[in-house]
Amino acid sequence: MSKKVAIMGYGTIGSGVAEVLEKNHEIIARHAGEEIECKYILDIRDFPGDVNESKLVKDVDIIANDPEVSIVVETMGGVEPAYTFVKKMLLAGKSVTTSNKALVAEKGAELIHIAEERELNFQFEASVGGGIPIIRSLNKCLTADVIEEISGILNGTTNYMLTKMRDEKSTYEAVLKEAQSLGYAEKDPTADVEGHDACRKIAILTSLISERQVDFRKIQTEGITTITPADIAYAKKLNRRIKLVASSVRRPDQTFDILVAPFLLAEGNPLYTVDGVFNAVFVHGNMLGDAMFFGSGAGKLPTASAVVADVVDMAKHPHRNIPVHWEEEELSIPDYLEKAYRFYVRTKNKQEEIKSAFGELDFIDPLLEDADGSVFLTKEISGREFEQRAADLQLLQRIRLK
Amino acid sequence: MSKKVAIMGYGTIGSGVAEVLEKNHEIIARHAGEEIECKYILDIRDFPGDVNESKLVKDVDIIANDPEVSIVVETMGGVEPAYTFVKKMLLAGKSVTTSNKALVAEKGAELIHIAEERELNFQFEASVGGGIPIIRSLNKCLTADVIEEISGILNGTTNYMLTKMRDEKSTYEAVLKEAQSLGYAEKDPTADVEGHDACRKIAILTSLISERQVDFRKIQTEGITTITPADIAYAKKLNRRIKLVASSVRRPDQTFDILVAPFLLAEGNPLYTVDGVFNAVFVHGNMLGDAMFFGSGAGKLPTASAVVADVVDMAKHPHRNIPVHWEEEELSIPDYLEKAYRFYVRTKNKQEEIKSAFGELDFIDPLLEDADGSVFLTKEISGREFEQRAADLQLLQRIRLK
Repeated sequence: MSKKVAIMGYGTIGSGVAEVLEKNHEIIARHAGEEIECKYILDIRDFPGDVNESKLVKDVDIIANDPEVSIVVETMGGVEPAYTFVKKMLLAGKSVTTSNKALVAEKGAELIHIAEERELNFQFEASVGGGIPIIRSLNKCLTADVIEEISGILNGTTNYMLTKMRDEKSTYEAVLKEAQSLGYAEKDPTADVEGHDACRKIAILTSLISERQVDFRKIQTEGITTITPADIAYAKKLNRRIKLVASSVRRPDQTFDILVAPFLLAEGNPLYTVDGVFNAVFVHGNMLGDAMFFGSGAGKLPTASAVVADVVDMAKHPHRNIPVHWEEEELSIPDYLEKAYRFYVRTKNKQEEIKSAFGELDFIDPLLEDADGSVFLTKEISGREFEQRAADLQLLQRIRLK
Repeated sequence: MSKKVAIMGYGTIGSGVAEVLEKNHEIIARHAGEEIECKYILDIRDFPGDVNESKLVKDVDIIANDPEVSIVVETMGGVEPAYTFVKKMLLAGKSVTTSNKALVAEKGAELIHIAEERELNFQFEASVGGGIPIIRSLNKCLTADVIEEISGILNGTTNYMLTKMRDEKSTYEAVLKEAQSLGYAEKDPTADVEGHDACRKIAILTSLISERQVDFRKIQTEGITTITPADIAYAKKLNRRIKLVASSVRRPDQTFDILVAPFLLAEGNPLYTVDGVFNAVFVHGNMLGDAMFFGSGAGKLPTASAVVADVVDMAKHPHRNIPVHWEEEELSIPDYLEKAYRFYVRTKNKQEEIKSAFGELDFIDPLLEDADGSVFLTKEISGREFEQRAADLQLLQRIRLK
């Protein structure tokens, strides 16, 4: 006997899932307790000559109506029609795994709830961190801890770009062009470079540790488009590295300070050494202390590996829901300006003006091109206090320290 | 209703488990689906005035014969009497979790088998990597991959010592004394510094990826006692760091090259930056690519957190065995001399003698104190070839590169 799976969306990840199921057939069967076989692949496109051509279908109902299919993989991306299709599959009694962060961030609580009511599973390991098993670690491993912080480099494209800017002293524009030519960045790079992708991912992680729905639209999200070679040079001078970090820190009142923004990381920070297209997730538990998970955050096979791990898990739990604590009730997110940081600042102002605005602080010797202005680090102050004190200055840049 | 747990061994880890169960009572209950309560603590010692004094018992049969206790935690350490007690508990119908690497390395397959036959569970997350959820990741997360390599810094004591030797240019003897005074190293440090502790841990990890019993006595194990400040200085010159690495690499014939030894790690190696008492486990999967898990490898609360995560998992699976693929059949281990490495070598010999023994290689400018001898890096050669070529040289040190 074998378990029949359908894949919805035959793009990069979907074809990766088919490849992993094929190549690692034997070990997957051993872990799942039975053979896993792909029966259908749904896509509106034709793939003449493709190795899986005979499995391709265009009508989602063929899958929904086939009682032999018990597990469905969603790798289409985007909220619609993925949401409609996934819901249809759950209502048809099939468990679903998805790699689609947009879908999970938007509809996670609802789909988890539908699966739970029907003794099915809705899983989404590949939606955050590609091949890194962070979702299952939070749900099944770190269960004895109150997770007090989860912070990560969750977007490989921007991490690749920032690494290149540092190593090759290139401009943002030049590395973007290179990343696009290598296929690391999309033609329209907005979702990556403006932090929207990382924002959806930290929303998902925060839902898992807060057990509430997080509205990602309410998360303060700052991208990397304003980072200049000068900022990279000052970072080096400070023995720090600029990384796009998505961060969620528990408050005593059980709300979370959530932020997606470039940070100047100190050398001792576990995320400091995470370079290139790699992702990493740092977790602090009240008993565990510090832990970090590191790996390929994207890419066809690592992501497909995480999807198939979900398939294995669901194959082992037919008609038995694996609880995910994520309620539909919305988590209230405090104003991001309340949280205090140290700030790195570049301005066009003279030191005297800075001093009268900020009082005590650390000036940094400016590079030649900034000789007319001032570069400095503030003390730890709230975002609101920073805005008030900097209101009359001519800011060129400000990046938080961590 | 609540689930009753007993703890066997009220030392550092055992008292940590009691503390975690108490402090994180609420979140543990939410994850487990019911309250978890410690009913008994077994120890031969008295703890007058201790907060858990009323739970202390000295007779293991009180626990074994109490049908209310369904989960037992073993934190005694050592093979006996832990083995006898754990077996007794399994035979009495109780699931068991242990932090005891000696027990798991020696008796893992047998205890897993007993638990499986009785629809119970025998888990051991805390036996490797303290708070790092590596065991569950291998069993439940990375299930779509053929794991081709698992290499780790699995001993916090030696990693702390090597980090101190580097940062403070201290001798092995001085940092050992310091580690002992801080409680990081035992009075008899043999198990740590000779690599025996790391050896048992890599044996356990190799069993999980090979699905076979590994006889840890057959693993080539080299400690850190011969590492000198000169070696640390040459490492720095080479832009490398010396770490005690336990490594297991899959061969095409499905056996594993297993080795515990100091390695000179290159800067790009994910384990390079793992300093102090931290542990890290690097995993390479054939689909996943590179991944790394990092965290506190020892310590009361991180280790207890991992034990309690096992308790939660077992509480969610009463009378239902979670499969662990680890057969009693022994894994055959190839001769460690077959595997090829580059070697760093310090000798008392002149360059001409080295050249005639090794042919082409890279000499390193010697430090003042080695001016009479030669320091060099070989090409990649098997351990056997290294031994043959070096047979007539006066070796002071040799460390593998990775």
